[in-house]
Amino acid sequence: METICAISTAYGTGGIAVIRVSGSESISVVDGLFTGRHRLSDTPANSIRYGQIARDGEVLDEVLCSVFRAPHSFTGEDVVEIACHGSLYIQQTLLQWLVDAGARMARAGEFTQRAFLNGKMDLAQSEAVADLIAAQTKAEKDLALSQLRGSVSNELGVLRERLLHFTSLVELELDFADHEELEFADRSELKSLAGEIARKLQALVHSFRTGNAIRNGISVAIIGAPNVGKSTLLNALLGEQRAIVSDIQGTTRDTIEDTIVIEGILFRLIDTAGIRETSDTIEQMGVERSRQAIERAQIVVYVSEPNPVPSLQGRELEGIKGTVIEVLNKCDQSPITNHQSPIIPISAKHGDIESLKRELVRVARASMTTEGVMLSNARHYEAVSRALEAIVRVQQGLEDGLSGELLSLDLQDCLAALGEVTGQITNQEVLSNIFSKFCIGK
Amino acid sequence: METICAISTAYGTGGIAVIRVSGSESISVVDGLFTGRHRLSDTPANSIRYGQIARDGEVLDEVLCSVFRAPHSFTGEDVVEIACHGSLYIQQTLLQWLVDAGARMARAGEFTQRAFLNGKMDLAQSEAVADLIAAQTKAEKDLALSQLRGSVSNELGVLRERLLHFTSLVELELDFADHEELEFADRSELKSLAGEIARKLQALVHSFRTGNAIRNGISVAIIGAPNVGKSTLLNALLGEQRAIVSDIQGTTRDTIEDTIVIEGILFRLIDTAGIRETSDTIEQMGVERSRQAIERAQIVVYVSEPNPVPSLQGRELEGIKGTVIEVLNKCDQSPITNHQSPIIPISAKHGDIESLKRELVRVARASMTTEGVMLSNARHYEAVSRALEAIVRVQQGLEDGLSGELLSLDLQDCLAALGEVTGQITNQEVLSNIFSKFCIGK
Repeated sequence: METICAISTAYGTGGIAVIRVSGSESISVVDGLFTGRHRLSDTPANSIRYGQIARDGEVLDEVLCSVFRAPHSFTGEDVVEIACHGSLYIQQTLLQWLVDAGARMARAGEFTQRAFLNGKMDLAQSEAVADLIAAQTKAEKDLALSQLRGSVSNELGVLRERLLHFTSLVELELDFADHEELEFADRSELKSLAGEIARKLQALVHSFRTGNAIRNGISVAIIGAPNVGKSTLLNALLGEQRAIVSDIQGTTRDTIEDTIVIEGILFRLIDTAGIRETSDTIEQMGVERSRQAIERAQIVVYVSEPNPVPSLQGRELEGIKGTVIEVLNKCDQSPITNHQSPIIPISAKHGDIESLKRELVRVARASMTTEGVMLSNARHYEAVSRALEAIVRVQQGLEDGLSGELLSLDLQDCLAALGEVTGQITNQEVLSNIFSKFCIGK
Repeated sequence: METICAISTAYGTGGIAVIRVSGSESISVVDGLFTGRHRLSDTPANSIRYGQIARDGEVLDEVLCSVFRAPHSFTGEDVVEIACHGSLYIQQTLLQWLVDAGARMARAGEFTQRAFLNGKMDLAQSEAVADLIAAQTKAEKDLALSQLRGSVSNELGVLRERLLHFTSLVELELDFADHEELEFADRSELKSLAGEIARKLQALVHSFRTGNAIRNGISVAIIGAPNVGKSTLLNALLGEQRAIVSDIQGTTRDTIEDTIVIEGILFRLIDTAGIRETSDTIEQMGVERSRQAIERAQIVVYVSEPNPVPSLQGRELEGIKGTVIEVLNKCDQSPITNHQSPIIPISAKHGDIESLKRELVRVARASMTTEGVMLSNARHYEAVSRALEAIVRVQQGLEDGLSGELLSLDLQDCLAALGEVTGQITNQEVLSNIFSKFCIGK
């Protein structure tokens, strides 16, 4: 396969940066630019060489090259990782020189795709690599790492193996279609297996709600009339001056999004423009964005001011689908003694927001389960849901005494859906789609 | 020395991240968290081991550990570099675990500081590491790399050695103060050496103007009345939608800064708020920032609109110190046939800005020299300037037949100033100040 290269470390200036080169020509491509005491081609696997990268008399940098040899590398191919100084100029020029020397820029996720194609990991594990990289909390990391180590793959793999065995027996019957009484596949055993598979798939489908919340965070829209202190609340929750705050109505125009972790739970906070009729074009666009954010939010924090204690109503609440938490801001200015009990008094300005944080965690926890193997990938969820539907049809068919021929169709549907998750059954389009979501360099 | 640790790659999420651990205990500290086929303590220098980082039953990540042994490492100490998945959570947790295991968070530049303290490089070379990391252009990279490889150090080192020899002779004369006629140091040779040193220091001082422009970029302020298209011009120069553009006066409030490289020269562009009397508080703050940017700029691009062709005048031009380039924007709307010749017609909206780019390069080149060893560090510039003053005093003293005692004082001043650059003469405060400007992890 072609030799590919990319910057594998985060974008930007750092102390060092690592450029990864993978493919059968990777060692010779880098050797063409590398001068050290030894050539990389004479370097044993898993060793590091110090030297310089130079071309046509221009020295680009002093570097360390790590050499890995097939199949004992991440991709399963020969790999050189070049650790250079983390200047953007050096990183980009080195990449350019590698391309000039015969490598090709790697596409997003292409290193992991090669690991998949070379049998180093299955598809679900490959996808877990991207999740592991994106992990922001312990829960996310644990979930991604367990998937990388094969939790989902093994769970589905075992079910698929057993189902495959029965399916073969059912299909064998079709070859002896003249002998209607012939049943290689014991129907009561198949029924019990289908029941077991249905239960496990049901649990996996159910786990997605939690897995998805762990992976993507729980979206929280902060809404309310202009000037009640929504941006101040966002800043207080984040502990930094993320949004511009002023006394002027309509200060926030864009929706501002940022994440915060409370007690290990990832929340995705969205500060919205105050919803009001306005003639300011830019603000109008902001109000429209607010509406969209509100529709998508799993939790909506509705901010209002005391005096009079307002009630939830009006156009601003159209389209809410998530749980609403009402807070009364500026409770430092006008102490509230007798407020309506479900409304939480806070003072964003003075950082008195602990009660709101507790409520966010409570609402989030109430929607999460934390047992067993967990799905967190929408593609897996969709495939497992289809597998579940198919196995339920198999169960129904067994109840109705359906013919082996018809049973076999549903069994094949179920097997195909399960195989899609781990990549035993796949196609180029699906693969491109999956790996294009990776960052480049992984 | 204590074992220190830090993330050495750029901040953020990437395919991988590298955490560096340095110090006599570095290998055993990492070994306490690492499980692989071999212990790191049994790993030969310059080798890589695959394994997992775990503690109390929790697996954090699967990693590659590179082992370096003193003195053959960047710092001159035992070093382990841990390449983990580039999740922020994993990076930060790993750092926390290393600290719990006995390492300490490295201060900014502390790895390079140790390389300096362990004699792996001198002070000027250490500073070049930071410049190399920050390099954005070939010129910057070449300059920093040549300094890292000792260009400034060697130039000054040779001068200092020769001066030191003469100074010892002059001071030897002082021990024989009773014999006034005794001159160990040949005055005419000393005169010729002082002349040579003065010329070389003068050239270095002169080179700083260019070195500084290469290192920090040439600042270019884009100014003009509201709505003449300053932000559109910035975007056109950058080739991206960096600044928000609208027909509404006062759209730009903050000064927006970004860099661009034209023909290898780094320009630091500053888009300013249109300068006008305004009652908008936020815009007023913007106008004030514009004034400051204008004062500091080396080049000022004054943007105006045709019809009538305006002339440069008024309050907006107060405080300009740099070269002014006048451009006439929106020349697509009203073709100019007979404009005043020094004004450059452009159309930012349509990207017709080539003539402006050429003028920027011409003005920049006119102020740059590119020969010989170049200073680019303000600290070096200041020290070399002091050395130059001292050696000029020595020259003067020789002319005036000054006594060895008085000559010796100026010679010592010159030696001290030269020694400061390479760090032969230094103190803790200077060191802290230098290394605190580094990024953490280098």
